[in-house]
Amino acid sequence: MSCKDQIGLVSRISHFIFERGGNILDLDEHVDPVEKQFFIRVTWDMKNFSVPAEDLEEALLPLTKEFKATWKLRFSGKKRNVAIFASKYDHCLQDILWRHSQGEYPIEILLIISNHQDLEPLARHYNIPYHVFTITKETRAEQELKELKLLEQFDIHMIVLARYMQILSNQIVSKYQNQIINIHHSFLPAFKGGNPYKQAYERGVKIIGATSHYVTEELDEGPIIAQDTIRISHKDSPQDLVRKGRDLERRVLAQALYYHAGHQILIHGKKTIMFD
Amino acid sequence: MSCKDQIGLVSRISHFIFERGGNILDLDEHVDPVEKQFFIRVTWDMKNFSVPAEDLEEALLPLTKEFKATWKLRFSGKKRNVAIFASKYDHCLQDILWRHSQGEYPIEILLIISNHQDLEPLARHYNIPYHVFTITKETRAEQELKELKLLEQFDIHMIVLARYMQILSNQIVSKYQNQIINIHHSFLPAFKGGNPYKQAYERGVKIIGATSHYVTEELDEGPIIAQDTIRISHKDSPQDLVRKGRDLERRVLAQALYYHAGHQILIHGKKTIMFD
Amino acid sequence: MSCKDQIGLVSRISHFIFERGGNILDLDEHVDPVEKQFFIRVTWDMKNFSVPAEDLEEALLPLTKEFKATWKLRFSGKKRNVAIFASKYDHCLQDILWRHSQGEYPIEILLIISNHQDLEPLARHYNIPYHVFTITKETRAEQELKELKLLEQFDIHMIVLARYMQILSNQIVSKYQNQIINIHHSFLPAFKGGNPYKQAYERGVKIIGATSHYVTEELDEGPIIAQDTIRISHKDSPQDLVRKGRDLERRVLAQALYYHAGHQILIHGKKTIMFD
Amino acid sequence: MSCKDQIGLVSRISHFIFERGGNILDLDEHVDPVEKQFFIRVTWDMKNFSVPAEDLEEALLPLTKEFKATWKLRFSGKKRNVAIFASKYDHCLQDILWRHSQGEYPIEILLIISNHQDLEPLARHYNIPYHVFTITKETRAEQELKELKLLEQFDIHMIVLARYMQILSNQIVSKYQNQIINIHHSFLPAFKGGNPYKQAYERGVKIIGATSHYVTEELDEGPIIAQDTIRISHKDSPQDLVRKGRDLERRVLAQALYYHAGHQILIHGKKTIMFD
Repeated sequence: MSCKDQIGLVSRISHFIFERGGNILDLDEHVDPVEKQFFIRVTWDMKNFSVPAEDLEEALLPLTKEFKATWKLRFSGKKRNVAIFASKYDHCLQDILWRHSQGEYPIEILLIISNHQDLEPLARHYNIPYHVFTITKETRAEQELKELKLLEQFDIHMIVLARYMQILSNQIVSKYQNQIINIHHSFLPAFKGGNPYKQAYERGVKIIGATSHYVTEELDEGPIIAQDTIRISHKDSPQDLVRKGRDLERRVLAQALYYHAGHQILIHGKKTIMFD
Repeated sequence: MSCKDQIGLVSRISHFIFERGGNILDLDEHVDPVEKQFFIRVTWDMKNFSVPAEDLEEALLPLTKEFKATWKLRFSGKKRNVAIFASKYDHCLQDILWRHSQGEYPIEILLIISNHQDLEPLARHYNIPYHVFTITKETRAEQELKELKLLEQFDIHMIVLARYMQILSNQIVSKYQNQIINIHHSFLPAFKGGNPYKQAYERGVKIIGATSHYVTEELDEGPIIAQDTIRISHKDSPQDLVRKGRDLERRVLAQALYYHAGHQILIHGKKTIMFD
Repeated sequence: MSCKDQIGLVSRISHFIFERGGNILDLDEHVDPVEKQFFIRVTWDMKNFSVPAEDLEEALLPLTKEFKATWKLRFSGKKRNVAIFASKYDHCLQDILWRHSQGEYPIEILLIISNHQDLEPLARHYNIPYHVFTITKETRAEQELKELKLLEQFDIHMIVLARYMQILSNQIVSKYQNQIINIHHSFLPAFKGGNPYKQAYERGVKIIGATSHYVTEELDEGPIIAQDTIRISHKDSPQDLVRKGRDLERRVLAQALYYHAGHQILIHGKKTIMFD
Repeated sequence: MSCKDQIGLVSRISHFIFERGGNILDLDEHVDPVEKQFFIRVTWDMKNFSVPAEDLEEALLPLTKEFKATWKLRFSGKKRNVAIFASKYDHCLQDILWRHSQGEYPIEILLIISNHQDLEPLARHYNIPYHVFTITKETRAEQELKELKLLEQFDIHMIVLARYMQILSNQIVSKYQNQIINIHHSFLPAFKGGNPYKQAYERGVKIIGATSHYVTEELDEGPIIAQDTIRISHKDSPQDLVRKGRDLERRVLAQALYYHAGHQILIHGKKTIMFD
């Protein structure tokens, strides 16, 4: 939940839960010191809770209306349906599939969509349907419509772009607002756009990075979820940057997915509040 | 505050504050998943609070008694009185004094105690009284009594051991329980005791560390507050380890002091809960 | 090559190569400042080299004898034969297999040996023979003999213990001196032996680590190749340490294998000289 | 030394030294894999060297001419004369002065130049002459001429800009090519120009950085010497970024100065080769 800061917010929210028999498992709040905006994430046990899950949304309405809050209700038992988009690079895809096999994410990966055949064997190893939609300038709009239909059919809640080498048009982005995660292979805002490792090599930086962010209409400008960096040196060739960067990309994307899947992120304008 | 986890804790604590007109500025809670122990740190604005500061301790008694909680009340406007102990190395001392001059810590540094004359000019540059107590095996007990008297006279609340090369005896440690911060120049529990850089050099580790911890009766065994590490290589001589380690030590000690001075640490057994 | 430091070593070695038409591609030397021991690694192009590969070992004898040096000759085109030992955890194994599929290592993985069936599907996905040798206290010696026979049969040069949960007896270790790489899930020398994450959790450290080292007769005491650490907090349960540690373990082991496979490591006593 | 890569370079250089009785203490070479450019740094003991120091430059001419090399000769016993420029922030200045007092740098700090009086007491504590030159748009050119005169008078070899808040005009930059080190408080090329912490706060990055680079005519575009980053979170206010960044800035600048003072940097176009 997020609203303008005001007196009594934590008390009234926690009291709402306590009164109805809920035990708070985790509560994390944050007040933006500049904008005086209040953010809170509360998790509670529904076992002895007097309001049934299906009525909870309505029960919360009076309070949230009074606070003029934006808010969301999620049930932690319910896994989210995920589609992964990939192209030819497998490092991010295989890492997510492997982590998922370890039980790291409360999600169901129902679908892999690609513009190439290459990663089909990997999908098969993990038993996940793999659909190829070849994209050209001319076919993009039409193919995306088919993709959207498929996403709908599988009731997909969120999308991970695992080094997907196409730019999604607004017809997909607008349907999955704040639900599409991308990995960019640079420390944004440095080296936006194409070939960031080449840009980094040419500039002679001593550290390279990777950034996972939400996809918005503006390229590489969405709210940043996670970033990390590693040291490089003059000994590293452009190929070394690619190799070292692969490691970083998969780690940063995995971390972003972990937070998003666990409903630990609140988005506020161009920024993310990460509750851990 | 810390107690056994039970239903309604956050609600009742936040309600206590809200009822009396307090605006919660920051609330952070943690439940230990193994021991089911509850920890909370709440900060609120006293401006329109109906209970005067001097009566607050008593007003909180019924609630905390009922919860069987251990708890502490601190007023953020009130600076804590600090004494720093040092010997001949100046890196930690000068870093703390400089940071303090930048306003990083809500403390008053009233006193520097040393077993050597060497750092007196540094103390003078920052206008802080410098007292020398030479320590030998024979004089330790007696000198520490004098030190204790001085600490009492200056109403010292907490002590920072800034690479103080003497071991404090229990007569001081027991008087300042959980109020003495030390810096050890290794990644504890590796390389306890003397000459950790030499130990690290001989073992051929690829990373060295520093650890800041509370001082307890058992050497290098107190609750850990902060740790950090840096990479070394076969090219580093024992002297290089000392040089690189200096940087690490002062940074880790500075961070520990920052958290302790800001009342952001709860101690539970051998562990610290850090609220940031 | 390694020997006591003396005047003219670099000159005479590089001259030996130059005289015979070799172009030095990379030369890295190190003199231990404490022991005055000299270490050098030289790579040169054999294209116009006047000594044929098969005679090179002999041609180098006079020089190396004069220097009283220990030395090794490797041809970079020739891939080394590798066996991986694993048990039930797949994170290190799958990471090495995947990296190998990316062409990161100049090796051939000919064999996976395990004391459990569990990882057989993973081996099959990468088309690598998988052999199970169940180990009990009683059968260890006998089973290891069978393993040794298999290693010999495949002409295995080096072994990677990818979280292999058995201790190799000396009959294997002595045959593969400085050729067995292990990953230990702690920042050695802290938390040697069993269950390091549990030890770390109980000590309340703020950072956990992983260490890759050569296997010697003494448990967790071999020369360290690579180490890395990550931050943890009081919020991390023992399970979180395991999850976060997995990431670290596979990264550190992958790095150690990278250096070893590329012949970039010289071992000197308990230490490694890493040339990169 | 740097030149086009060709056969025999290491051999002939090391032979030149060996023939004249020099013992090589350290040799590090690098061949740029893309441009095939050769770089080498050699250190040798002059004790039994047959060429006197004053004739060495000439003795090296034939070899370096033949290689068409750019090269420099430095005597490690001879300390370089340094001037530090600062404004009002003291964190970088005091850190360099303190490190210098520890003997970390083979330099003489002869002069501090500032456009403000503020840091004069710090300079006095370390006994270093402090000169104030107030700079306005109108007086810049004239004041810089006076500064140049002073630099000449003190025979200054290199300049450190320790958060000096003025842009040096080309009349100074061109006189001290590759001899002026600056610290920029961002991870270049991200957040060039003014107020990088504010830019970082507004973009919502999860990591901030600092970059030390050589000063060239183009602002923030000189060859990068050292970079480092630290994690921040949504909890950090713009003031926290400044506080955390201070630590980073002084560390990165200190490291850059360490390498430059030790003659461990070769510059090639927009990049630096760091020999350590």
